[in-house]
Amino acid sequence: MQILARSDHPIRRRIAMTTSAPIRLRVFSLNCWGIRYLSKNCRERFVLIGDLLTQEQLDLALLQEVWCEKDFLFLKKKLGSVYPFSHYFKSGFIGSGLAVFSRHRIHDAFLYRYSLNGYPYMAQHGDWFGGKAVGKVLLNISGLNVHVFVTHLHAEYCREKDSYLPHRVVQAWELHQFIRHTSAGADVVILGGDLNMHPDDLGTRLLRNYTGLLDSFSEAANFEGCEEGFTHISENPFTHSDGLVPFGGGVRIDYILFKGSGEVDVSCESLCTTKGPVPGLPFPYSDHEALTAEFLFTPTKKGNGCKEREFGCIPDKLPELVNTVNEARTEVKVGLHCSERMRHTAARTGIMGLVLLVLELAIAAVPLFALGAEQPFPKASFYLLGALCFAVLLSTLMLYIFYSMEVKALQGTEDQMRLALSSLQERIKEYPKALSSDHLRNSLDSKDSVHLKQES
Amino acid sequence: MQILARSDHPIRRRIAMTTSAPIRLRVFSLNCWGIRYLSKNCRERFVLIGDLLTQEQLDLALLQEVWCEKDFLFLKKKLGSVYPFSHYFKSGFIGSGLAVFSRHRIHDAFLYRYSLNGYPYMAQHGDWFGGKAVGKVLLNISGLNVHVFVTHLHAEYCREKDSYLPHRVVQAWELHQFIRHTSAGADVVILGGDLNMHPDDLGTRLLRNYTGLLDSFSEAANFEGCEEGFTHISENPFTHSDGLVPFGGGVRIDYILFKGSGEVDVSCESLCTTKGPVPGLPFPYSDHEALTAEFLFTPTKKGNGCKEREFGCIPDKLPELVNTVNEARTEVKVGLHCSERMRHTAARTGIMGLVLLVLELAIAAVPLFALGAEQPFPKASFYLLGALCFAVLLSTLMLYIFYSMEVKALQGTEDQMRLALSSLQERIKEYPKALSSDHLRNSLDSKDSVHLKQES
Repeated sequence: MQILARSDHPIRRRIAMTTSAPIRLRVFSLNCWGIRYLSKNCRERFVLIGDLLTQEQLDLALLQEVWCEKDFLFLKKKLGSVYPFSHYFKSGFIGSGLAVFSRHRIHDAFLYRYSLNGYPYMAQHGDWFGGKAVGKVLLNISGLNVHVFVTHLHAEYCREKDSYLPHRVVQAWELHQFIRHTSAGADVVILGGDLNMHPDDLGTRLLRNYTGLLDSFSEAANFEGCEEGFTHISENPFTHSDGLVPFGGGVRIDYILFKGSGEVDVSCESLCTTKGPVPGLPFPYSDHEALTAEFLFTPTKKGNGCKEREFGCIPDKLPELVNTVNEARTEVKVGLHCSERMRHTAARTGIMGLVLLVLELAIAAVPLFALGAEQPFPKASFYLLGALCFAVLLSTLMLYIFYSMEVKALQGTEDQMRLALSSLQERIKEYPKALSSDHLRNSLDSKDSVHLKQES
Repeated sequence: MQILARSDHPIRRRIAMTTSAPIRLRVFSLNCWGIRYLSKNCRERFVLIGDLLTQEQLDLALLQEVWCEKDFLFLKKKLGSVYPFSHYFKSGFIGSGLAVFSRHRIHDAFLYRYSLNGYPYMAQHGDWFGGKAVGKVLLNISGLNVHVFVTHLHAEYCREKDSYLPHRVVQAWELHQFIRHTSAGADVVILGGDLNMHPDDLGTRLLRNYTGLLDSFSEAANFEGCEEGFTHISENPFTHSDGLVPFGGGVRIDYILFKGSGEVDVSCESLCTTKGPVPGLPFPYSDHEALTAEFLFTPTKKGNGCKEREFGCIPDKLPELVNTVNEARTEVKVGLHCSERMRHTAARTGIMGLVLLVLELAIAAVPLFALGAEQPFPKASFYLLGALCFAVLLSTLMLYIFYSMEVKALQGTEDQMRLALSSLQERIKEYPKALSSDHLRNSLDSKDSVHLKQES
């Protein structure tokens, strides 16, 4: 891998970055809805997705919900000539469903599993079994360190009464933390995936404001596709369209976000989405629309990059960020309250089961001590009741452990948020001073300083 | 927080780093063995640990096994005047047991939970319930970004037949990945904790070789403490000393590792360990010995830092690293084989339970269809057998899910290792070229080049 060896060397890296022409990168993202035997036209759709990716000759394809490894291996084989590099992230019971196909060598891969991701007993929703996570791959494109993230957050099943909201907020928090902490050395950051959040939802704001990531839909010079960039539309035959009516026939929940760095200016030249059915067929690629963004990387010293885009350097953004974190913290607290209540209920039910079991055992012991006494109630009911008590005891014990882990994760996130808030508030206090002294220094350096000196 | 605001500003940061004198930092690490009601003298020992930390006036204390939040809160209150900043990492059912006390403001905290950490049914070992993880806190000390990591890996209960070895290797892999990916922006990296691995164990080598972290025991200019730096000694009254006899009466499993960066040279001035009982008392602080390291940070452009210490810049180290990763991959494969076998056993037992249950239901159905027929065996045994079948079915289902998740995590780690190996091997291929062209460039720049030119 000549590119990496070159770019790793500081001198070569500098040469590569200052002399090279702007680089174009085309990125694709799609939630494939690939649940074998449950998703409609699953196999045909993977063939079509493979055809589309071969035809489009992209640089990078970020796929979600490739739940079955066989489907990944099928795509890997089919796409081998165009996308020689790929990675499939494994996590949870069947997941994580995340896959990356790339024309550029993948040098490193890392996975962060979200600490909260629904409930195992909500099998009909199935998110828990998917082991939702954020995957990261490291690319080196013409000497630039490109950090690519792909993720899929917990689904929203009912917007009005969304019991998974605290979990999704925690996931958004962990996603932002993961990106922020792992991309210090990046020249370019790209995140693609199904966030299951609308553009103005709390989690999206938290992610965008804290990391400084830009939305390719808002930034794209040219856009072509579904109205308002919708990626989940009511016309889709696989979609339960009733839920989308209040939102004007669609929602935008899939994103390609990006940012550059102090050394690379990144602009989004175009964004397009698929629009319903595959040409010539009665069904689309998935229950979501695919996104394709085209980026232009221009080496520069004045980019829209990490340093410039991070909240730390935009003091005006700090109060807004404090409000967002406060809002998220409230949501986590609501979740914590609910989780503690559930744990309490589990404990109480468990204790009742235990008391009943002990009582039953005591009744069973009576004939043993009083040899003449008869068993007071029918044996069959007795054993059934005993088995029931035992089952209640066991299941409440497991629920108690599960809710305790949920409580710990929510408390941990709330602690991190509190710490972040205190750090942000310190920055707000400090910035006026920093700004005023910067202003003073600038003034002294400028022509005006002569005037100032003369005045003094 | 004046320091942060200053250091965040690029100009100020440069000033702070080039003009400031060397900085001293004293770091403490201890596995506190703080299991309430189970650990001996638990409360007294936390009082003594608090006294020691107050007396020592350190910069940073990294504690493990502070399992009960009340003990953390007790220490927080007691140490508030000396260590105004602290963070307690929450994870798992009772854990993670990790706590940080600092004299310097903690700006940010982030937690990575290891994907594998023992088995819930091994309740006597209890590691699964602890939710083992690596915690990271960000400090800013006189303008330097100090990334501090604290961790506690799965215990080793039997060295000869260590069934948890694949889990510990996965944890060491994830620990190295987490440190490597999150510390690109660090001036100084410090890792303290109980790794439950000997200095030459696979996981320790993997961690040290891949991240370039240095061992304070090997690097310290002065060492005072237990023979060979042991942190788990047979003289400790809380220790089962039999297991330590083959190792000469002790093992070194607790570490403080460190590295600088291109901008900061970090040296370890001294390292000391506690030696058994607290002065004047019949018992020690814990079943482990505490470590205290003193570091000196010297701003420089030629440090022993991240860039210089990373494998990428030490081509000689690459073949060794390839061997270590290969060894780790073999261990993960062994674990994978074992885990797949366990999953298979769970599935087989579950199917047997299901068949038996169906058979029983069929037998129960006989009297319903043939109205005259009698129930063929006693009702009590019938119900008991039914309950047993159901219990077997349920527990094997849960075990199947658990082992599937273990398989996925092991496969995921193996995939990451395979990717890392191919990337390392590419680097090895590239380095001779890179080195020879570097050598040529250096030669041309040096005086020798004149000689070379004259010769040509």
